Amino acid sequence: MAATRTIGVAIDGATGRLGTTQHLRALLAIRDEGGLALANGDRLVPQPTLLGRDAEKVAALAAARGGLDWSTDRDACLADPAIEIYFDATPTGGRAKRGAAAFAAGKHVYVEKPVAETLDEAIAFARAGARAGRKGGVVQDKVFLPGLRKLNKLYEAGFFGRVTSVKLDFGWWVFDGELYPSQRVSWNYRKAAGGGLILDMFAHWRYVFDQVLGPIKSVSCRHMTAQPRRRDEAGRAFDVDVDDHAFAMLELEGGVLAQVSSSWATRVKRDDLLQIQVDGSAGSAVCGQHRCFIQPLVATPKPLFGPDFPANMPYHEQWQEVPDMEPQQNGYRAGWELFLRHVAEDAPFPGTLLEGAKAVQLAEACYRSDAERRWIDLPPLAL
Amino acid sequence: MAATRTIGVAIDGATGRLGTTQHLRALLAIRDEGGLALANGDRLVPQPTLLGRDAEKVAALAAARGGLDWSTDRDACLADPAIEIYFDATPTGGRAKRGAAAFAAGKHVYVEKPVAETLDEAIAFARAGARAGRKGGVVQDKVFLPGLRKLNKLYEAGFFGRVTSVKLDFGWWVFDGELYPSQRVSWNYRKAAGGGLILDMFAHWRYVFDQVLGPIKSVSCRHMTAQPRRRDEAGRAFDVDVDDHAFAMLELEGGVLAQVSSSWATRVKRDDLLQIQVDGSAGSAVCGQHRCFIQPLVATPKPLFGPDFPANMPYHEQWQEVPDMEPQQNGYRAGWELFLRHVAEDAPFPGTLLEGAKAVQLAEACYRSDAERRWIDLPPLAL
Amino acid sequence: MAATRTIGVAIDGATGRLGTTQHLRALLAIRDEGGLALANGDRLVPQPTLLGRDAEKVAALAAARGGLDWSTDRDACLADPAIEIYFDATPTGGRAKRGAAAFAAGKHVYVEKPVAETLDEAIAFARAGARAGRKGGVVQDKVFLPGLRKLNKLYEAGFFGRVTSVKLDFGWWVFDGELYPSQRVSWNYRKAAGGGLILDMFAHWRYVFDQVLGPIKSVSCRHMTAQPRRRDEAGRAFDVDVDDHAFAMLELEGGVLAQVSSSWATRVKRDDLLQIQVDGSAGSAVCGQHRCFIQPLVATPKPLFGPDFPANMPYHEQWQEVPDMEPQQNGYRAGWELFLRHVAEDAPFPGTLLEGAKAVQLAEACYRSDAERRWIDLPPLAL
Amino acid sequence: MAATRTIGVAIDGATGRLGTTQHLRALLAIRDEGGLALANGDRLVPQPTLLGRDAEKVAALAAARGGLDWSTDRDACLADPAIEIYFDATPTGGRAKRGAAAFAAGKHVYVEKPVAETLDEAIAFARAGARAGRKGGVVQDKVFLPGLRKLNKLYEAGFFGRVTSVKLDFGWWVFDGELYPSQRVSWNYRKAAGGGLILDMFAHWRYVFDQVLGPIKSVSCRHMTAQPRRRDEAGRAFDVDVDDHAFAMLELEGGVLAQVSSSWATRVKRDDLLQIQVDGSAGSAVCGQHRCFIQPLVATPKPLFGPDFPANMPYHEQWQEVPDMEPQQNGYRAGWELFLRHVAEDAPFPGTLLEGAKAVQLAEACYRSDAERRWIDLPPLAL
Repeated sequence: MAATRTIGVAIDGATGRLGTTQHLRALLAIRDEGGLALANGDRLVPQPTLLGRDAEKVAALAAARGGLDWSTDRDACLADPAIEIYFDATPTGGRAKRGAAAFAAGKHVYVEKPVAETLDEAIAFARAGARAGRKGGVVQDKVFLPGLRKLNKLYEAGFFGRVTSVKLDFGWWVFDGELYPSQRVSWNYRKAAGGGLILDMFAHWRYVFDQVLGPIKSVSCRHMTAQPRRRDEAGRAFDVDVDDHAFAMLELEGGVLAQVSSSWATRVKRDDLLQIQVDGSAGSAVCGQHRCFIQPLVATPKPLFGPDFPANMPYHEQWQEVPDMEPQQNGYRAGWELFLRHVAEDAPFPGTLLEGAKAVQLAEACYRSDAERRWIDLPPLAL
Repeated sequence: MAATRTIGVAIDGATGRLGTTQHLRALLAIRDEGGLALANGDRLVPQPTLLGRDAEKVAALAAARGGLDWSTDRDACLADPAIEIYFDATPTGGRAKRGAAAFAAGKHVYVEKPVAETLDEAIAFARAGARAGRKGGVVQDKVFLPGLRKLNKLYEAGFFGRVTSVKLDFGWWVFDGELYPSQRVSWNYRKAAGGGLILDMFAHWRYVFDQVLGPIKSVSCRHMTAQPRRRDEAGRAFDVDVDDHAFAMLELEGGVLAQVSSSWATRVKRDDLLQIQVDGSAGSAVCGQHRCFIQPLVATPKPLFGPDFPANMPYHEQWQEVPDMEPQQNGYRAGWELFLRHVAEDAPFPGTLLEGAKAVQLAEACYRSDAERRWIDLPPLAL
Repeated sequence: MAATRTIGVAIDGATGRLGTTQHLRALLAIRDEGGLALANGDRLVPQPTLLGRDAEKVAALAAARGGLDWSTDRDACLADPAIEIYFDATPTGGRAKRGAAAFAAGKHVYVEKPVAETLDEAIAFARAGARAGRKGGVVQDKVFLPGLRKLNKLYEAGFFGRVTSVKLDFGWWVFDGELYPSQRVSWNYRKAAGGGLILDMFAHWRYVFDQVLGPIKSVSCRHMTAQPRRRDEAGRAFDVDVDDHAFAMLELEGGVLAQVSSSWATRVKRDDLLQIQVDGSAGSAVCGQHRCFIQPLVATPKPLFGPDFPANMPYHEQWQEVPDMEPQQNGYRAGWELFLRHVAEDAPFPGTLLEGAKAVQLAEACYRSDAERRWIDLPPLAL
Repeated sequence: MAATRTIGVAIDGATGRLGTTQHLRALLAIRDEGGLALANGDRLVPQPTLLGRDAEKVAALAAARGGLDWSTDRDACLADPAIEIYFDATPTGGRAKRGAAAFAAGKHVYVEKPVAETLDEAIAFARAGARAGRKGGVVQDKVFLPGLRKLNKLYEAGFFGRVTSVKLDFGWWVFDGELYPSQRVSWNYRKAAGGGLILDMFAHWRYVFDQVLGPIKSVSCRHMTAQPRRRDEAGRAFDVDVDDHAFAMLELEGGVLAQVSSSWATRVKRDDLLQIQVDGSAGSAVCGQHRCFIQPLVATPKPLFGPDFPANMPYHEQWQEVPDMEPQQNGYRAGWELFLRHVAEDAPFPGTLLEGAKAVQLAEACYRSDAERRWIDLPPLAL
């Protein structure tokens, strides 16, 4: 007969934005639905313990969620046998060390991206998991975006014919704290805390390309600090010592070229904050986070170009929307379901720590490409 | 008292698309308005002679325009003292040699871009003009586009504050001749004729950047042949041996980064075939060939990013259009007026052959960057 | 050197609707543009002679078109050596006999469809042309409709994948002359004059299917007289003794099924008076006379069906329009150009009299299918 | 004084889509409103017992509906005297036998359509009911659709004048399970389970025609398997051995012709998934499941047809909508109310098993017409 068992999950950084609004919410939703149904019919109920530095904030959040366990003592959590999974959503700096410590304490470890600040650390972290015989994983929420799912279907259906090029544009304007408060936490802009746009966002682009758009072989990247002086949460001015804007070119397997722009200092006149265009011999697609539009070869228009012809076609209207075919999944919850099954019944899990290391590899290659002003290849990684 | 004098202009390649629909049209318009009023009140009336290889086509065009002079003999034209200006709008291949020969014959020389296929040829061409003591010039039509003029005004007014980055997207889908005839002449796709997208289009981007967006210091470029097999005007299949798609990153003076995409193999879901975005600390602009939209810092929105927030703002509507303030100029005619004044009264002329050589320098650097997989600097040029 | 020669064309039935508004107009347009340019550079100028029964009307039309030749004596026209082409746009009854007489007089013969009222007559007519060594042809104007051209491109591009079924809906409400005058000539409703909707319209469907949608192998048809009592041009009531409404099913080569509705007694709530839907494994198209819309598999929606779900999707908006890629041709003029070249330089001509006979074969099979209440096969035809 | 009594209803196939979302819901709604008010003022409360093969699923559904009786033992249910009505919503295969067994056990029998897979079985089933002296009935939900009700009113009001023709279009694209999961259960595509579009949908068309559009006298039908290979619920590929697409022509009493298209492999560019057009001398109607539009003779437009006239009228806008005049009924619930009254107080019931047999007769005639390539008459049926 079907059994129900609980599994303790420590959420480090529970009071952060992602920790609260995404991960804790996802776990509580699974819990409140009676747990996750496993393949054998059993139900697995996650039991969160909130972990943080500011006792007052952690306690308040725990209370507001109906009285959850909470702590400010990471070591104590790791020593608690009821906690089987350690999850880290704190700032990036030190993540690999925290994760390795959790492995050493016998925990399974699930972390926000990037898994580390350097490739060496990332590999060491992944190896620590392998040595400990515990499961490790990194959040890969973007592949669950409806727009990305639709794009994936187009690839699957062979819609593009031969894909020739890809463009990914991401970003919006993050205020510097002068006129309006910044919409991002200040540690994103500090090197010591593991900040930097490339480290943050190219961690996403790595799995988005590898899983949907085509594996990345090489990168040429250039970054800058568009807003070098900011004010933090307390209104204190500080100098930004990391990148907040990057342009890159990628070479994908099969010879496809990709162009990427990612910026916290750009203004948006396109359909979505994240927009991906794929051009192919048989058709093109332009997708945002949720919507996706296609233009097949047979409906491709023949615009006139010349000084006497202003935009003489409604270019935005010459695309057909791909309808919603599947119920939308929250990517964070979907990731938790996958990781819980990975832990509980050894189900396959795409976001292994090796994949997380690949994301760090890409970021590192971007920084090196900028420094050396040349293309950097991404060699295969293994543990 | 004001005098009227005529000036003979040989239009080589008059029956080509640009030759007929732009340059000949521009000269006839100036002629039909009684000539160009010079600074001293005199009027200068251009008298075109059509030059081409296909006698029947040239004769037909000459007849259709009310009986113009025409010829298929370039040498005879160059020997004709009534012809003071030699203009070349034939395919790029051999342009520098044709121009140098015209200089040698004592003509002033005005040419379509690019001025040559290699930087060495371009410099030699420019020097030939200097030696001959004749005026030389290259067409730079894009700066007269209303959208570029508006963008220029925004720079002039200091609208952007500190400019941080620029994006230029250009292109549309050029059919390969299978399903529909190609919209571009086949020589654009043949190396021997001086084809290639970079050679063609980056000739524009050089002066657009140098004059409007900021002088280019360095380039990293990657190109490809997205459509390797095409059919020509006669329906014959041929292999494309040049690039039809390029991604590039540019470093501008002052540390501004720019990203460029130029393609004859992309489909368009944006406002215009050519679109330039400039981001700055005080505001951003997105301009097409004719229209230009701005978003100042004080009207910059604060969009939410997250899987639960689909494109929840009308991003396209959060921009304000820059109104039309000047009558629209046709860039080709404006270029002719500038060059005619340059010849007749030594008025300043922005599109010197040295500037034309810079465009070739950029194209050459792009090709070299692709080959050597690194950034290429653009050193200053001089005669 | 290029020569210009005239070719006399007798237009029988010039004062009829099609004769005046389409055929005479087309010939005069060709004439007024200096004739048709042949492959060798010569120009062929058609010289129309108007032929009709009502001298007053014919003379008036000839005068209104700048003083054309005209006659009411068909035999005299056929005896005139300056007339090389006899064209028949009079009512269908007797057409094959008139055409055969023209062949006998040494003329080339071009006719409106249907070429005859019975298959035997049609074959005899085609054979008369072969015996006389003269060119024969039938008008096939519908394939030049922009909508049909676009549909053809979709087939050419393989858009449909495996085509499974076709639907053709044609018709509108033709008033019976009581409340409003009829919009069709009364002979369309009289058997003795060669009337009948099937004989008239299935003559089109035969070549539309054979050339675009797939060759017809078999037909099952049912017709009726929806409006059995009408008033003619003079307001006189008469009994309709032919069909004005038909439903049919067709089997095409390759096993594709088609459904056809054609009616002069139906009201229209669709995009166009003529609408064709093609369904295939990879996509569908819905085309009218001019516009064409597609829905590829990857953008096919998943509507809900059930009593609680009213039309809950904007079904009309889930299609993408195929853009206009070619200049529109008038099908009647295009037919004349093809036939003139066929006569003057033996250029290929799709609408031979054998093809015209196939159209009559289809109509005859429709009538027989109705009478015998079974499917009728269409065996191959030859002269 | 008014009495309340319960009546036991066994729902066979309760966990199927129709069983759960329509029939069980309808019965519970009647129950929860205190039962059905009979003519004498008594209230009849249906008490459902859920019957199915998968104990876990049946039990879960019973629990989720507040603890209903349930069983996996059909014989036991039939032996239970508290159960007076046996209702069958399982797959079609074997329905007539199940129903006959229920009659033999003394139950009243109500079934989903079609009542059987062959006419002989259907007649035998109906006779079994007559012999047993029990009431039998078949679901006829479509006549309660608001669109059909409005259409019925138009007939009743004599709106059409003399009806001349009818067109019924039904269908949408059912995915084959490759790119997206199929929206229909796989047994619909298996002959052994009673699948096939004609058997499924023409069961509806029979009573829709007989009750609303005119009794069917004869049919000519052609079917095909548009998607011959599919994946089932478990993702297993299988070969389809029944029809999923049919074209038909019908002859109705009074000489009216009808054309029917029904397909699970078509894409929809019309107002609704089910659309019926009725043309008559005094007006026409185009109705979907819910909405209905009319165009009377006096508002019929006079469109121009010709190559120079693209769709030059807004054909969709030239119709007037029939307003909603009655509250919408759910057809499944309405059917239950009728059948319960039929059982409880011998009220008249349109969907007798003889009518159900007529639907099977039509399907059988369709298949035979396809095989014999001719029209098949539908003789009157009697028990």
